[in-house]
Formats: sequence, structure tokens, C-alpha cells
Amino acid sequence: MNLSFLSSDWLLESKAARDLYFGYAQDAPVVDFHNHLSVEDILSDRRFGDICSLWVAEDRYKHRAMRIAGMDESLITGDSPAHDKFVAWCSLLPRLMGNPLFHWSCLEMKRVFGIEELPCAENAEELWAHCNSLLGSEKFSNNSILRSFSTEILTTSDDILDDVSLHGKASAVSGIKVRPSLRADSALAFGKPSFKAFLERLGEGNPVSDIDSYCSLLLERISFFAANGCRLSDHALDSGFRFVKTTRDEAARIFEATLGGPAVSDADYVALKSYVLEFLACEYARRGWVMQLHIGAERFTSSRLRAVSGAAGGYACPGNSLDLRSLCDFLDALDLQDCLPRTILYTLNPSDNAILSSLTGSFALSRCQKIQFGPAWWYNDHLCGITDNLDALSSYSVLFNSIGMTTDSRSILSFSRHEYFRRILCNYLGGMIEKGQLPRDIEFIGEAVRDISYRNSKRWIYNEQ
Amino acid sequence: MNLSFLSSDWLLESKAARDLYFGYAQDAPVVDFHNHLSVEDILSDRRFGDICSLWVAEDRYKHRAMRIAGMDESLITGDSPAHDKFVAWCSLLPRLMGNPLFHWSCLEMKRVFGIEELPCAENAEELWAHCNSLLGSEKFSNNSILRSFSTEILTTSDDILDDVSLHGKASAVSGIKVRPSLRADSALAFGKPSFKAFLERLGEGNPVSDIDSYCSLLLERISFFAANGCRLSDHALDSGFRFVKTTRDEAARIFEATLGGPAVSDADYVALKSYVLEFLACEYARRGWVMQLHIGAERFTSSRLRAVSGAAGGYACPGNSLDLRSLCDFLDALDLQDCLPRTILYTLNPSDNAILSSLTGSFALSRCQKIQFGPAWWYNDHLCGITDNLDALSSYSVLFNSIGMTTDSRSILSFSRHEYFRRILCNYLGGMIEKGQLPRDIEFIGEAVRDISYRNSKRWIYNEQ
Amino acid sequence: MNLSFLSSDWLLESKAARDLYFGYAQDAPVVDFHNHLSVEDILSDRRFGDICSLWVAEDRYKHRAMRIAGMDESLITGDSPAHDKFVAWCSLLPRLMGNPLFHWSCLEMKRVFGIEELPCAENAEELWAHCNSLLGSEKFSNNSILRSFSTEILTTSDDILDDVSLHGKASAVSGIKVRPSLRADSALAFGKPSFKAFLERLGEGNPVSDIDSYCSLLLERISFFAANGCRLSDHALDSGFRFVKTTRDEAARIFEATLGGPAVSDADYVALKSYVLEFLACEYARRGWVMQLHIGAERFTSSRLRAVSGAAGGYACPGNSLDLRSLCDFLDALDLQDCLPRTILYTLNPSDNAILSSLTGSFALSRCQKIQFGPAWWYNDHLCGITDNLDALSSYSVLFNSIGMTTDSRSILSFSRHEYFRRILCNYLGGMIEKGQLPRDIEFIGEAVRDISYRNSKRWIYNEQ
Repeated sequence: MNLSFLSSDWLLESKAARDLYFGYAQDAPVVDFHNHLSVEDILSDRRFGDICSLWVAEDRYKHRAMRIAGMDESLITGDSPAHDKFVAWCSLLPRLMGNPLFHWSCLEMKRVFGIEELPCAENAEELWAHCNSLLGSEKFSNNSILRSFSTEILTTSDDILDDVSLHGKASAVSGIKVRPSLRADSALAFGKPSFKAFLERLGEGNPVSDIDSYCSLLLERISFFAANGCRLSDHALDSGFRFVKTTRDEAARIFEATLGGPAVSDADYVALKSYVLEFLACEYARRGWVMQLHIGAERFTSSRLRAVSGAAGGYACPGNSLDLRSLCDFLDALDLQDCLPRTILYTLNPSDNAILSSLTGSFALSRCQKIQFGPAWWYNDHLCGITDNLDALSSYSVLFNSIGMTTDSRSILSFSRHEYFRRILCNYLGGMIEKGQLPRDIEFIGEAVRDISYRNSKRWIYNEQ
Repeated sequence: MNLSFLSSDWLLESKAARDLYFGYAQDAPVVDFHNHLSVEDILSDRRFGDICSLWVAEDRYKHRAMRIAGMDESLITGDSPAHDKFVAWCSLLPRLMGNPLFHWSCLEMKRVFGIEELPCAENAEELWAHCNSLLGSEKFSNNSILRSFSTEILTTSDDILDDVSLHGKASAVSGIKVRPSLRADSALAFGKPSFKAFLERLGEGNPVSDIDSYCSLLLERISFFAANGCRLSDHALDSGFRFVKTTRDEAARIFEATLGGPAVSDADYVALKSYVLEFLACEYARRGWVMQLHIGAERFTSSRLRAVSGAAGGYACPGNSLDLRSLCDFLDALDLQDCLPRTILYTLNPSDNAILSSLTGSFALSRCQKIQFGPAWWYNDHLCGITDNLDALSSYSVLFNSIGMTTDSRSILSFSRHEYFRRILCNYLGGMIEKGQLPRDIEFIGEAVRDISYRNSKRWIYNEQ
Repeated sequence: MNLSFLSSDWLLESKAARDLYFGYAQDAPVVDFHNHLSVEDILSDRRFGDICSLWVAEDRYKHRAMRIAGMDESLITGDSPAHDKFVAWCSLLPRLMGNPLFHWSCLEMKRVFGIEELPCAENAEELWAHCNSLLGSEKFSNNSILRSFSTEILTTSDDILDDVSLHGKASAVSGIKVRPSLRADSALAFGKPSFKAFLERLGEGNPVSDIDSYCSLLLERISFFAANGCRLSDHALDSGFRFVKTTRDEAARIFEATLGGPAVSDADYVALKSYVLEFLACEYARRGWVMQLHIGAERFTSSRLRAVSGAAGGYACPGNSLDLRSLCDFLDALDLQDCLPRTILYTLNPSDNAILSSLTGSFALSRCQKIQFGPAWWYNDHLCGITDNLDALSSYSVLFNSIGMTTDSRSILSFSRHEYFRRILCNYLGGMIEKGQLPRDIEFIGEAVRDISYRNSKRWIYNEQ
């Protein structure tokens, strides 16, 4: 099967859509404000030994599909040779039509490697040889591939204890603005097995015995991140997230209890986490950072699969609808102190789209938009999910001011999804023009397309023109 | 940018759609069974001094969009001159493409003022002069505008303590049947700061010291409303609504406690409200009234914005999914006493559409349809939201028996949204005809369009032919 | 009104859709893996005395619509003559355009009885005579009608106490593989009025006084079902379903309490049900059965209607979103013992589609797909609902491996809905081909259509090639 369906007009079903895409979207640089790329790979301009290591080995989405299809774990995360994993993946791909992996994978193969055939069992050997041969050349180094997508800014996701001093050098090496963002989940993981080690590393060997010292140490990390160009933070508000306004004294009592005193109740954990989350958010606001809230993942599904594939191993699913009361209480506690940072709300449960997009108008007493409804996240990043996201943005918020797409990906190849998003966006607006729902003013709407694709996130997040 | 996209065929994408609209919908009179219009304005046939006071000053939807865009509150609800507020609004409008405000505003300007240009920063001055000049003429008085939409019946929303004796006179003055509806939320606001004053006004100075007296006084108000032509009541079942079947004695105990006895628990408040709500609903049923339930608003978001913009200030958002157990217990308690009034269910959370539309078949042991799933409410009143509402109505209930559109608006200009709804409805059904999903019987389906647009609500709510 | 809209190309809007349907779907045999057909009717090859008994008398969907329309209960489930019930139903049908009953009913009349006119008040008498006359002939016996749909396998739903020894003979008589499935809800109905009688029947007169005896007796029933060709079980996880991992000793204590000891709390009932459900599911897994979970019905709506129309009387509605934590805990408890059966998840609340379709990737550490997201269930089995289901399957799971359609119906005429599903499926995939979203490889996608329509369920559920 050939990939001719991926024509230059792909997904652009009307003239207006094509005019918008080719005139305003196609050549806009890429700002990818949230991803999980490796700064080490950028710093070293990594060469990939084979196509499996670049395309399959680390891709939880592909692993997930391979598991649904009943493939043996040895071919997924196990010790089968890279070649066999690649062949296994290719043999599955044609069956994934309709799944986002199908479009993503075809796009990656065609745009980066010039492949014109759909990968499948029959041509996997040939592709293995062809791609590996290309990967040997300088044009297929980590940074060359990133630059081929016109990447201008990218922001990695970094644990609060990570050393983010290398991002500046990574920028110099790559010619791309590489910035860190602060992922502070580990600082809220009270009661988790990992927390003891976290506290030791945070204290650098010194005991951390009270909440004030704890917050001071977190503050030092924030300052370190800020000094290295950080402008974004990130919290996972997983399924079950609750917030209750909590005083310092209450938090102090609970914090000490977690260090080995009496048993700590679930309610106490919620209170302690709420206190520290509010503390951190205020600090983000003071520094002019943007706070990202990734809402609604259910990460406790199959324990066996979690043990096999690790904490980010692709077994999560959308959780129940968020606890809106808690989210409002959290945002309102900040707003009342004039400490509400600019905030991006993402949801894994698309039935919450209307709620979260509407919230952009609920915390809005400010000189700039405080709340953005973020792009279709994770399992929602596909044709249906992106379209639903655009519907929610336009119907309940202001689409033309929205911040567009980010990959949230571990793979540099995923940057091709900015093209995917832009085509869907242009088709969406172009369709509205053709149906007479919008004026046929390609220039005006085209500039808005460019805003959404590129300029809005650059301005709103990074304060760059 | 001109408004030529708003052609006579606007939103009517097929011949069948156009045949339905022009043959059966366009000239049907308007029945607007729930809105927040001012009966005083109708009585005085108000003239509007300037376009801002008619179009911007009181419009929470517009305020909300202006806040999202980061405009200064002085230009929204503050003390900037009307002219500046108008210009600010016009300058934002083109950026709102996709948002319902864009379609609504263009429609209002074109249909009422004959404007052919999209309002924007550049032409705001000119529009200001043009519209203000028109507003000076009798043809642009409050009631002239209402009549220009072929308004036949309209029902305002009135607090239970309001004087609704003026509606008859307003009808005579305007030539439109102007009817009150009873909004009884204040009678259920036990424990709220405002309740003490409510109780004093209700008792007209006499102390109200027990639940039976309280209910008797409420009954007097219901009778007063009935005597003034009321046939509709209305309750907001906001996010967090709970119902528990409660005895008179239990309600009596709690009522007295709220008057200054011991502290009242949340559970007690739920019980007391449940008792009074059930009492009122039975009275609605006895009088043949329709009960409206507006379900699922979350009105506690930004406290600062609430303080600035008032209780209806546009900061609400859709709440979490309703507590269906409570809603069923409430309706069932009424049904068991043969006191279930005809009821309209609205939801602000569109992910509850399937549930609420299905409920029309769950309480249906009667000689007429007892439950109607109402039109797309508030933030859902847009192309996507109306289409989703029609999908839910047709898939889970009986679309042809549904009661169509109401504006729920404070603005007489919003009556143009009946045209919006009808175009979407005709396009929806016309599209089904063109796709072969329905027989091509324009007359039969056209009569159903007229039913949905006009006759069903007139019959089902007002019992008029 | 004639039924010419039901042309051979019905719902097939593109050439690709038609090529898929006529080339790969139309003539695929029917595997209906979950329905409520009567095995007695198959065994006796029932003749239907009149069209009402076949088409209206037992159809809860039709009853529901007739009640919404305010028809008298005597014409629905009451003692009016069959003729009058039939006429009442016909007179309503044209008003149901948009509702799934409209498409289903037209399809049934045209495909089975060759009717070319839309049933309505005017032609009801004529249809009554025509259909009754046909029903007198052998070609319209129960099994002739089933065979006319190319039915190859069908699975009825049978209470755990039912005698399923007749299914083999029914297969021989009909030429269709007629298999039982085990519905075990009555075994979990602790505390319900019906439970005492259930226990007596299960024990065949002997007292069942402890949990181990209880489980042993259930096991005997499972073995009996297995010996009669059962490969499927089924549980209703209604709105309010909770699961907590429970030990044998705890379950033993509660079981004895339910037999007449101290009062049993709601939490205890949840624990006891959880224990027995887990026990049963492990046994399903050991036998290689498929477990069906029908999630999210709210069956407690109108008590009066429940009393009138019986426990399956069409008054249910979609319940609130499922308790995902409970569902995951249940599946994980099984998975940890390597006792997770292949499982089909159905939901009545379409806002849970994304969650349940995603779960197919969350419990997937196996040599075959463990979780399937089932077809659009009950009130969702219509054009919108099926399309949403396909969107969820393709976006969050692997559509080409999915198990397609089942009727879940009490009526043999409903087997025409396999055609309905296949047309929608082909139009869905055909539309994607025409829009360039999929390669134009009709053969490859056609084989997938045949898989989804027929082969996947045959293989995955029945292990037949």
C-alpha cells in the first residue's frame, strides 16, 4: 500500500483550507512548549544507531497498540533484538488504520525518511535497511531532524531535582531555544515510597524536618530553574485530585507526621499536598511563569503492566471527570492573593472539554488571559480529539487567542504532528468559511491561523514577539 | 470585512434545508418561554439612548469575552463612557470568530440595524453614530424591536417576591402576550446571607417562625403569580444539588434551627431544601404549571470576579455531571403522589445530554409528555451545542414533539436567535433528507419544523392552539 | 410516504462506502453474540399469530416512545386488542423521525415484509392484513426469519438457574448455532426481595448456610452451562456499582449475616458482591469464557412505571459516569491472579466511551486482546451512537480488531440491525477513504470490514475460524 493519500493537500478538503494552510500555517516555525525530549540528546546531537531506537523502542503509544494486539512483551519492552521489534511494529501498523498512530507513523516515515510505502510485514526488511542507512548521515542527527521541522523554541519537562544548567548549552549547540520546565510532582508525593529518597536528595544529606525548611528548599530549586531560563511549570492532577485550603500550621503538623510520627490520614495528605501546591503556584505567579495542569489521568490500572513497563508505560487511561470544586477552590485561593499564574488546563477526559474551556472565562479579571484551555492531550491528540478540542475552544472560549499545539512527546519525530494539527486547524476554519459560517477573509483568518500555530504561544508563554 | 456571508441562505446547506426554512420556519411567530427581559422596559416601551446600553452594557456574554481578552474592567462594567465600551467591544468582535458571540452579534447588527459591515475598531465610530441615530426613531423602541421578530408570547423570569401585576398591562401596551414565570430560588436559599431579608419581605414584617407558615406564605405568592397569568416556574439546580425525601416534621425542626437555634449541618440544609422544593413542585402540578429545572451551573469560581460583576456576572461555568440519583428521587417522589408537573430539564454540562434526554422516557406514565429535554442552555447555545442538543433529542427522545428554542436572555436583540435556531434545525433535518436518512417529504417534515419552532411550546406550555 | 429512501445505497454516501459494503459486508453471515431471544421460540419454530405479537407487544423501545407521546398504557402493555396496539404504534411512527425506532422499524418492514410504505395511521389496517397473511406462511416462521438474515451463531442470555440443555436441540432444529450465555445478576442480588427464592432454587431445597457452599453451588451451575456450550457470561454493573477487594472470611461473615443475623450495611453488601463477582470471574477465566460487563444503567427512575411495566420495562436511563476506580480494582484483582477473562465493556453513558475504549490498552499484558470495548449499547444503538462508538474504538483502541455488532434484543426482527451497523461502518471507513484519511485500498479495508462485521467476534468469542 502506498502513502499517496498523504498528498500535499492532505486533510485540506476545501480551497479555503488550502489557502489558509499554504499561505499562513505551513511555514510558521514550531514552538513546542511541552515535551519530554532528552536535553542530553540535543547536547550531543545524538546519532541513532537504528530506526528502532528512534521510532519504536521508547514509544509508549506504539507499545500500547502492540499489547492490545496481543504481541509478546519481549517484542515490546523485552530483550528481543531491535530488528525484530521493528518488524513486529511494522507488521501491526496497517491494522491501526483509524488510530492516531496510523497517521502519525505514516507522516513520520514520509516526511523524515521519504518513505512512499506503508510500513508492513512485507517491506519491513527493506525499510530497516533504508532508514538505518539514512540514520548514518549527519542530516539525520537528532538536531538536524528537529531543525527540519523549523523548530524555534522547545521546552523539556524536568524533575525539580534535575540539573537544568545544560539547556543553555543545548540551545547554542542546536540553534534552537531549548528551555527547561519544572515538573514538581515529586515534591507532592508525600507518603509514596519514593518520597524518602526525594527528601534526602533535596536536602543534600541534611535532614528536612519542618515544612518551612521544605518550602525553602523547593524555592531554591525554583530559583535555579528560573536562572536557567525556565518559564513553565507543570503538575499532574491525576484522577482523584482534591484541594482543600490549608493553613501553614496544619501543613506543618502533617509534614512532621509524614516524617515518622503517627499514621497520616488520606485527608491529611490532601491537605498537605494542597498547601505545597498553593505555595508553589504563588511562586510561579511571582516569577511570571506559566503553570500547566495535566488533569484527569488514571494511572492505577493494571499493576502487572505497571511493574513491567514503568511509571509512564502506556497503561494509563482517562479518569473520571475532574473534581471541579477542588480545581476552582485552588484557582480561587490563588486569585484572592493576586497570585494566580497564567495557567494551561489540559484534560485526558474529553467529556470535560466544555468545563475546562469555559473556565477560561471564569478567572479572567486581569490585564491578560489568565487561563488557557490547552491542546488535545495524550490519547486525545488525533483527528477527532483535536476537532473536539477546537470545537470547545471556539464555542466556550476564544479560539483565535489560543496557544495551539504541543507534542508532549518523547520523540523528535513527533514534531511532525505540528503539521498534523495545522492541517486540521486550517480544514476546520476553511470548512467554516466554505459553509458560510465565517466571512471569506483569508488574510484575516490566515493571520489568526498563524497566531494559533505559532505566535500566540510564543507571546503568551515566553513573552517573545 | 462585510457581512455578506449572512446571506438569505445562511446555514442552509441543502435544498431540503432551504425548503424547510423558507416554507415552514421563517415566518412562524416567536414564542420565547424563558427570558430575563425587563417588564418595565416593555411597559414604558423604552427608548435606548445609545447602542451601548442596548447591545453591550448589560450583556454578560460580551463581558465574559472581553475579560478573556484581557480588557480593563473599566471598559466592561466600570465607569468608562458608553462610547468607549462600545468601541472596545467592536474592536474585539472580529477575534471572536467561532464563538457564538460572533454569529449572534453579526445577526443582531444586520437584522435589526441593517449593518452590512463587520463591527471592528475601524468602523466603530461610524456604527456608533449610525445606530444611535436609528435608536432615536420610534421604529427602534423596545417593543418595536420585539414586534419586528414576530413575537407572539414571551415569559419573563420573576423572583417570587416580585410584583407581577404589570404583565397584563405590558401585554396591552405591546401587543405581545407578556407573562411572568416564578423563580423560587430565593425561597430555598436557607442559610444564605440574603435569606433573612427575604423572610422579612415574605412575612411583610410579621415573623415567620415555623415551616407551615412559611409554606403558606409561599403558597400565597404562587396564587398571586397564577392570578397574573403565570404558567411556568423555574429552579436552578446548581452543581452540588442533592435531594433527600424529607418529612414535614424533620423539615419543621430544621426550619426552626435555621432561625437561630443550634448550628445547621449541610445535610440538614439539603433536607430542608428538598422538603420545600417538593412542596412547591406539588403546587405547580396542582395548577397545571410547567416546572423548569436549570441543572448544573457552577457559580462559585472566582470570588473576586463575583464581587466585581454580581451574582449573574458571567463567571459561571458548567459544573460536574448532575447527581442523577437525586434528580430521579425528586421526580419519583412527585410522581408517586401524582404530582409530577410537566417539567423541562436544561443542562449546562453537555456531557449530560444523553441522560437528560433519556429521562423523557423514564417518567412517562401519563396522558401527555411529562418531561421535556430543553434547548441548549446558556453557554451551549451555539452551532455545536444546538446540534448536539438536536442529536440528543432525536436519538434519545422524540424530536418532533420537542419545544424548540428560548433565549434565556436579558436582551431583546437576542430574539434574533430564534432565526439562528431555526436555520440550524432546518439544516439538520434537511441534511438528513439529502443523505437519505429521512423520506423526502418536505411537507410532513416542514410541519414538524413549524411544531418545534413554534406550535409545540405554545401548546405544551401555554395550552394554546 | 414511501420507503424509497431505504434504497440499496442507503447510508452509503460514497463510492468507497458502497464498494466496502457490497464487496465485503453485505453477505457476511451474522454472529449475534448477545441477545434476549427465546430459545423456546427457536425450538418450536414459533409462528406468530399476528404482526403485533412479533413487532410491538414485547418491544420496550416502542413502548417507551409510545409513553413519551402520551399514549394510554392500555394501548401499550394493557388489555387493548393486539390490532389496536398495532394501529396505535403505526400512527406514532412518522413522528419518530430521527429516533432509532424510525430507521429500525422501516428496515424491519421493508426487509422482512417487503413493505414499501411508511406505516402510519392511514395504512395501518392494510398493513395489519398484509403482514398477518404473510405470517401464516412457513417462510415467516421464527427460524425462517432468522435464517433470512444469514444467522450463523446466536447467543441468548440465560439466568444462572435456567435450563440451558435445550440450546443444542434448538441448534439442530434451526440450523443455527444457538448457544446460551450465563447471566449471573441474580446470584449477586443479596438483600433483594427475590434473593430468598433464588437461594432456595439454587439449593434445590437444601439450606445454603455458608459462602463456600454458595460458591460451590454456583460452580455447579457454571459447569452445567459449560457442558451446554456456554462461552459467555454477563453482569450488569448498574449505576452505583462499587468494588472492594474482599477476603473469603469477610465474605463468609457477611453472607451469614444476610441469612438472618444482624443488619447488613451497604458497605457489607458491596463487599459480599465484590467477593462473589471476583469468584465468578475467576471461574470464567479458567474456562476460557468471555465476560460481558454492561455498565451504567440507572434502573431506578419512576417507581410507578417500574410497577406497571416490569423490571425490564423501558424506563431506565443512562446513569452517571461509572466508578472507574472500582472497575480498575476489579479487573486488576483478576489480572494479579492471572484470572482476567477476556472481557467486553459496554456502557449506557456515551460520555464514558473514551474511558472504556482506552481501557482496552490498560489491561493488555497477554497473548491476546483481553479487553474489548463493546458496541453501542441499548439506547445508544443508533446512527449517532454507533458513529461515536466507532470514533472511540478507532481513536482510543484498535477498530480493526473490534468485535462489531450485537443486537441485545428480544426480537428476531432486530437482526436487521446488523445491516444497519454494517452500512454505518462502511460509510464511516468509506468516508475516511474519500477524504484521504486512509489509503484507497478497498481490498485491505474491506477484509477489515468483514472482520469487524463477522470474523472477529467468531474468533475472539467462540474461538471458531
